[in-house]
Amino acid sequence: MSFGSDNWAGASNRVMEVLAEANAELAPAYGNDHWTGRARDILSDQFEKDVAAFFVGTGTAANSLALGAYARAGGIVLAHTDAHLAHDEAGAPLLFSPGMQIELVDGPNGRISPKALAARLKSFGERDVHRGRPVAVSITNVNELGQCYSTADVAEIAALARRRHCAVHMDGARFVNALAHTGASPADLTWRAGVDVLSLGLTKAGAWCAEAVILFDPAMREDFAYRHKQGAQLFSKNRFAAAQFVAMLEDNHALGLATHANRMGRAVADALTRSEAAALLLPPQANEVFAFLSPAARDRLTRAQITFAPWQTRSAHAAAPPEPDWMLCRFVASFRTSDADVAALERALTG
Amino acid sequence: MSFGSDNWAGASNRVMEVLAEANAELAPAYGNDHWTGRARDILSDQFEKDVAAFFVGTGTAANSLALGAYARAGGIVLAHTDAHLAHDEAGAPLLFSPGMQIELVDGPNGRISPKALAARLKSFGERDVHRGRPVAVSITNVNELGQCYSTADVAEIAALARRRHCAVHMDGARFVNALAHTGASPADLTWRAGVDVLSLGLTKAGAWCAEAVILFDPAMREDFAYRHKQGAQLFSKNRFAAAQFVAMLEDNHALGLATHANRMGRAVADALTRSEAAALLLPPQANEVFAFLSPAARDRLTRAQITFAPWQTRSAHAAAPPEPDWMLCRFVASFRTSDADVAALERALTG
Amino acid sequence: MSFGSDNWAGASNRVMEVLAEANAELAPAYGNDHWTGRARDILSDQFEKDVAAFFVGTGTAANSLALGAYARAGGIVLAHTDAHLAHDEAGAPLLFSPGMQIELVDGPNGRISPKALAARLKSFGERDVHRGRPVAVSITNVNELGQCYSTADVAEIAALARRRHCAVHMDGARFVNALAHTGASPADLTWRAGVDVLSLGLTKAGAWCAEAVILFDPAMREDFAYRHKQGAQLFSKNRFAAAQFVAMLEDNHALGLATHANRMGRAVADALTRSEAAALLLPPQANEVFAFLSPAARDRLTRAQITFAPWQTRSAHAAAPPEPDWMLCRFVASFRTSDADVAALERALTG
Amino acid sequence: MSFGSDNWAGASNRVMEVLAEANAELAPAYGNDHWTGRARDILSDQFEKDVAAFFVGTGTAANSLALGAYARAGGIVLAHTDAHLAHDEAGAPLLFSPGMQIELVDGPNGRISPKALAARLKSFGERDVHRGRPVAVSITNVNELGQCYSTADVAEIAALARRRHCAVHMDGARFVNALAHTGASPADLTWRAGVDVLSLGLTKAGAWCAEAVILFDPAMREDFAYRHKQGAQLFSKNRFAAAQFVAMLEDNHALGLATHANRMGRAVADALTRSEAAALLLPPQANEVFAFLSPAARDRLTRAQITFAPWQTRSAHAAAPPEPDWMLCRFVASFRTSDADVAALERALTG
Repeated sequence: MSFGSDNWAGASNRVMEVLAEANAELAPAYGNDHWTGRARDILSDQFEKDVAAFFVGTGTAANSLALGAYARAGGIVLAHTDAHLAHDEAGAPLLFSPGMQIELVDGPNGRISPKALAARLKSFGERDVHRGRPVAVSITNVNELGQCYSTADVAEIAALARRRHCAVHMDGARFVNALAHTGASPADLTWRAGVDVLSLGLTKAGAWCAEAVILFDPAMREDFAYRHKQGAQLFSKNRFAAAQFVAMLEDNHALGLATHANRMGRAVADALTRSEAAALLLPPQANEVFAFLSPAARDRLTRAQITFAPWQTRSAHAAAPPEPDWMLCRFVASFRTSDADVAALERALTG
Repeated sequence: MSFGSDNWAGASNRVMEVLAEANAELAPAYGNDHWTGRARDILSDQFEKDVAAFFVGTGTAANSLALGAYARAGGIVLAHTDAHLAHDEAGAPLLFSPGMQIELVDGPNGRISPKALAARLKSFGERDVHRGRPVAVSITNVNELGQCYSTADVAEIAALARRRHCAVHMDGARFVNALAHTGASPADLTWRAGVDVLSLGLTKAGAWCAEAVILFDPAMREDFAYRHKQGAQLFSKNRFAAAQFVAMLEDNHALGLATHANRMGRAVADALTRSEAAALLLPPQANEVFAFLSPAARDRLTRAQITFAPWQTRSAHAAAPPEPDWMLCRFVASFRTSDADVAALERALTG
Repeated sequence: MSFGSDNWAGASNRVMEVLAEANAELAPAYGNDHWTGRARDILSDQFEKDVAAFFVGTGTAANSLALGAYARAGGIVLAHTDAHLAHDEAGAPLLFSPGMQIELVDGPNGRISPKALAARLKSFGERDVHRGRPVAVSITNVNELGQCYSTADVAEIAALARRRHCAVHMDGARFVNALAHTGASPADLTWRAGVDVLSLGLTKAGAWCAEAVILFDPAMREDFAYRHKQGAQLFSKNRFAAAQFVAMLEDNHALGLATHANRMGRAVADALTRSEAAALLLPPQANEVFAFLSPAARDRLTRAQITFAPWQTRSAHAAAPPEPDWMLCRFVASFRTSDADVAALERALTG
Repeated sequence: MSFGSDNWAGASNRVMEVLAEANAELAPAYGNDHWTGRARDILSDQFEKDVAAFFVGTGTAANSLALGAYARAGGIVLAHTDAHLAHDEAGAPLLFSPGMQIELVDGPNGRISPKALAARLKSFGERDVHRGRPVAVSITNVNELGQCYSTADVAEIAALARRRHCAVHMDGARFVNALAHTGASPADLTWRAGVDVLSLGLTKAGAWCAEAVILFDPAMREDFAYRHKQGAQLFSKNRFAAAQFVAMLEDNHALGLATHANRMGRAVADALTRSEAAALLLPPQANEVFAFLSPAARDRLTRAQITFAPWQTRSAHAAAPPEPDWMLCRFVASFRTSDADVAALERALTG
């Protein structure tokens, strides 16, 4: 049994069914097919505006291409101290936008502190060519500590960014989980709050490969199309990527899967809370649970062949472990996680 | 009906079945799963040596990452005048290897002329920092005019490259079609003939997304793993890419599909040859047919809703059209092309 | 004695004097000094408009940064078959603008053929993401065969470029020699004819290091300032670069030096013409002379320790040598070349 | 009067004299001249080994090209929290090595803490493609707080780096000032202590443009030559860069200038120490003095038209200002700073 990551889960049955359906006929290549058109229509429909949507193979690609659209000479992206794109993508954003720098801004609960962001933005001189200039602020929602930015949180960050002519990027590798938690609409959590570009990930939610860059300014479509191709991300049989979006977005399928995964996340947190050998770092808001575990608890889980991941936060705001040898760990629930799985976890924990 | 491209066809039934099978259980992410291991084992088995295999999302990615592994400061890649990577990938290889140049070498039948290659290689001074230095020779097999390099052809090019310390890259977007035509083994057509790195494409043959970089020097595995991730090409649910390789390579499934497609290519060529309104550019060796079509013939096909592609060759060796208004066109057969399709094409042509 | 290149000559006496003058006092670094301001004022004065001027260390840097200002995803620069930036800069423009491609367009006399340019521009589809899109046309003036573009020539190229929304770049490594030949004003030969950005080189004319990027749209100044710094081209003691521009541009010093060099070029051409062992490729228009030399003539020059350079043109328009063993050679006159030097050349030629 | 920076000073008389001497004759371009050879010989002589030396236009270029020689896919450079190359070069190192990341390691007195470095290096997993891998450690000597690494300090850092197969880079923008302070030989302070590549800056010491990359492994010479040219840093009239090295290095001219500047630095520190309105951050070791100044002191200096720079350190180890409104400032002495200048500073301070 695994709480290793939600990308250990495969694809939902519905995704597999729609993939089979999409396979029935010949279809033009490189996105000139009706599945791609249909997926784009659904996206524009759900975001309540004409959006430019580009399907890519990985979340790393989505982040890298999205930021690239706003890169300028001497440009600096501001992101949270724990940002995935700064630590876990092997420098991909810097390969796709050579010369772009990433600077980290801390804040509690995995969120950029608006106050710290304001101070950082202010620290840049108007034309300091040596230091460079801020061009984008990137926030992750659900963030790297499993917490969400509310629409108000997003709007606050975005307003600060806008004042300094910075674009706002949202890394939405678990965007649907954030929707499920906040109850916000896709439009409210993004462009209505000031987001310019979204890395929309549905893979973790229950597809096998459904990642996209969503640009809320459709005037950027033509330019981005070249970036997308040059970034080696334009699938020849693009309909199979598109079909997964269709499957996930129609009838709120993804939202249903994410709601389940979030519920399982809370169940995991409850189980951990009931154990004396574990202490939550934060109450989870989505499907990821971060907790300190005693050595004994870790041993018990390992013996029970329950997978989880030792974790690390670089944030100065994170709580210290209750005991020096307790280690921060991450547990992730997915659309496939069951109550039985959580029960087994709890049994293993209690030895 | 479409002869537009083999990537208009979807995935074979077998591929869909194995994808379903791969979806049954949880599996570790990022290639640490048993499907990835199994696909790698099959590849090493079929290439008769330990190879380093990396799955990517597009043929453009495979070419770009493959060349990047051999890029050096001032480095120049030599490729055929019609090379796909020089004209149809939006400069992706130059994005992934900033500063790398591509120089074109012509030759008849879509193949680099060994004599022209030798002369070009000789034209580089030993330490001419202004001009740069050749670092790789890239050949496409099946090439951009639907012709194949035999093992002897490959060996001749590779020997010239090696003498100048250049790596040899093969763009194998239709590699299995080349295997089917030449009857060579995968090993004979690649590393035994001097190829260092292969862009292996099985998507066109009948998968939905099965592209890989195959490095024949396994010592490059560790370094390339970082390149692969940094290039935003490491799938989180990598097992689904791997499963397609398993489906395609076990029991020579891909070879069977390609053999069929090649046979359909010949049938298309025969149909075109029988028409007075068409003239083959070259007798096809795989599943692509290049022919000049009269305006009347093009009209008839369009009216019959038969898709094909106007084409262009930049090679000085290409034959001229028989009449000034005849246009070079490309027809591609796929695993899904049937005798009935070809018969319909012939009926339409003869009006 | 050397006709090897005009960059074998050092700096004019006046340049050395002004450098000494600029050294007299402390001055702010990084271009915030009055010499830099003065050089910029002179440039705006001589170009008859407010220009954005950035001093750099090499012509390669000027070309690379200038094109970078117009690079876009999928962007292609069109340049002449013999363009220096395509063959003699080790791929620098592709390092500074990763992903940018350079395509060559031929034409007689080292000039892009307007007809060929029009055809090439037309060959790009409107949104062909695979092939990419033209973003700039680069012309060299004086060009790589020692010929000049007149103001009418420039305007014709620029009009074609503009129609396709391409920027126009002029590689002016020998710009002053072009001014001297054409008699045009700096403004007429550049922005009034449609040039957007000029690589202005005064090093060959008689400075030790005086290269600049001149942007004719001053609104690009702020953005380019970051590009300039990030390209590692902002001198800390920038006044010394600026002082050379002051020295070269005040009182038309550079124009005087170039006029002399051009006159010496014609004298070299006359001497070669009078020899039976040499044949001009083209009548020179500036200070570079291209001629075919017999083996005997080359031997005689070598024995007389007169330096010149074997040369190569890739243009299909270039004349063939009068005899198979005659070799294309380049002779360059500089501000330091004297009548005595040319007389010595003629004596050596005639054996 | 200015203590703004040592690059406000111009060039020493001797440098100007040697430049004039180098200008006397024609000389081959692009470094094939005897001045370049002579400068290289002197460098090899002073470093007591055959070194590969490349002259560049800026310290930023030296750092960027030097690190580029060790960049690999997924590679990370570790540098001090205050490192110039991380904060003051507009991302240039990331432009020249796309995809390379810079991570900061703190430590007191502007030096990387060996303990913190060891911990950071240990934190990288062996094959963690997501996070990337350390490829180089960069130290600045004289560092960003005006302090020096002794030969023992360098060796300690280098040993840690070596254990993890990291190259060691030294940013020596004020290298001669470090030699003057430590009394170490150039060889002892670099390659004998484990440094692989040095950015050697003599501009600040008293040239107008004398920056170089010194590779201590001469086998890297050929490869780096292409990097140097592609980086747009190969001067056509390279002899003028070389001549400055000759002038600065012969007879220990630069060391003499730096010794003077260091002495003036101490005099500035003494003057500040004697003032009640200033407090040293650290006792200076070279020609830079960092001190907290009261608002009144800053006003007095400004009124006296004495230039200095408000400063910032990001290090958590830096002392806090004695009073909240005292501001960290930097004063730099140069080869041109006189006792009279320091006396004037002291007079101004005491109001």
